[in-house]
Amino acid sequence: MAYDGSGFHGFAANRGVRTVAGVLTHALERYVRHRVDLTCAGRTDRGVHARGQVVTFDVAADLVAGEAERTRLVRAVNRMCGPEVAVRDAAVVAADFDARFSAVARRYRYRIWNRPEPDPFWAGWAWHVERPLDLSTLRLACDPLIGEHDFATFCRRPAPVDGREASLVRRVTEAVWSDDGDGRLRFEIEASAFCHQMVRSIVGTLVAVGLGRMTPGDVRPAMAARDRSRAGDLAPPHGLTLLTVRYPGWSSVTSGVRPQM
Amino acid sequence: MAYDGSGFHGFAANRGVRTVAGVLTHALERYVRHRVDLTCAGRTDRGVHARGQVVTFDVAADLVAGEAERTRLVRAVNRMCGPEVAVRDAAVVAADFDARFSAVARRYRYRIWNRPEPDPFWAGWAWHVERPLDLSTLRLACDPLIGEHDFATFCRRPAPVDGREASLVRRVTEAVWSDDGDGRLRFEIEASAFCHQMVRSIVGTLVAVGLGRMTPGDVRPAMAARDRSRAGDLAPPHGLTLLTVRYPGWSSVTSGVRPQM
Repeated sequence: MAYDGSGFHGFAANRGVRTVAGVLTHALERYVRHRVDLTCAGRTDRGVHARGQVVTFDVAADLVAGEAERTRLVRAVNRMCGPEVAVRDAAVVAADFDARFSAVARRYRYRIWNRPEPDPFWAGWAWHVERPLDLSTLRLACDPLIGEHDFATFCRRPAPVDGREASLVRRVTEAVWSDDGDGRLRFEIEASAFCHQMVRSIVGTLVAVGLGRMTPGDVRPAMAARDRSRAGDLAPPHGLTLLTVRYPGWSSVTSGVRPQM
Repeated sequence: MAYDGSGFHGFAANRGVRTVAGVLTHALERYVRHRVDLTCAGRTDRGVHARGQVVTFDVAADLVAGEAERTRLVRAVNRMCGPEVAVRDAAVVAADFDARFSAVARRYRYRIWNRPEPDPFWAGWAWHVERPLDLSTLRLACDPLIGEHDFATFCRRPAPVDGREASLVRRVTEAVWSDDGDGRLRFEIEASAFCHQMVRSIVGTLVAVGLGRMTPGDVRPAMAARDRSRAGDLAPPHGLTLLTVRYPGWSSVTSGVRPQM
């Protein structure tokens, strides 16, 4: 599924606020006429977008028996959800498949609009950084991210589970800056999984380097310190999009939906 | 200038509602500290966007004397206007230059998202038409538009000026459909000038042809009838963007701002 996160308090259902899971669950329950309990691949924060989010849920078998039934379900749910949320495809999966725990990698994209003047058409999708960022410096700065590391410097510390600290060790397999021309910079990062606020904290830190507030050489020791105060400011959420989720043998589709964004 | 028209009641200043001219005038007056009276090339309707809108106004000469002063003015105004509105460039023009009356042509773009499933990232910029439109039929249907015609069929009849009916004769020089792939259709139309609601009425009529509710052969007699009831429904405003305005010797820039939109 894809969504424009601007008008949502994040993915996860939360009483009293409008969330993606809340809107989707409500639509699904109206259609399937039984309780629906969603699991998602990546719990995006307030204001974060998605193009290749994946969710799983249990449903009465006859409602999704064939292609025609699934198409009908998708259309009905899309009509109920409104234009900000789109279910792009639906499939029946094995009972032990889980959108979250079966995923082997997630890929996020972060957009920066790097020109002095604002652009109304990018305002909702990219962080406006007025001062010019040097791409080769940004690239140097993200080298230390690659590989398996403890990302405590970039993550909101989670509550202990059963009295034990949760691990913040993650494996980053790719971290790439691209220049799409006309001031449009794009950062894409792929990892086994991400901890809370990790991409936005990484982007904020890399941009601090790009603006000369830190040097590329500061990133590695900042990571080693496992200390949030060594990271740059959190980049704003509206530049971030959950792009793809990979599973053994397939990955969520991201083409077809605004391919150039 | 460029703007995301979603949150505005059109361009023209209008007491009690938020308009682009209202926001821009307010920002300019705060900066220049005298009254500002804007003229624009195309008074876009509520919900319509612009990438190459042009406005002219009188200003104290010392505030725009050099490049540095103009850059300062543009930056200050952009900060005050917020992310939906962007002044892209400012220049001092001859006293007899007028954004509206000096313009020799206007170009509009209309976007259609033509797939069964919605796309949250196009929802604000394209009309979602679920049933497939045949491009060659759309192209056939827009042939009769080219040239000088009375466009009364496609226009809201204006109030008489000094007791005389205003002419709805306009010269259309180009009307082109393009397929940008993945269900993204684009219609661009250029004319000496447009009357009120003309592009949206034309698009609504062409889409009626594309959906089989009218035939390509119906367009010419509908135009000849000078009768609004012969046009298709008005296409929604959010698919429409004022793209470029041409003047003798130059035209407003549209590159640089989301070139692929």
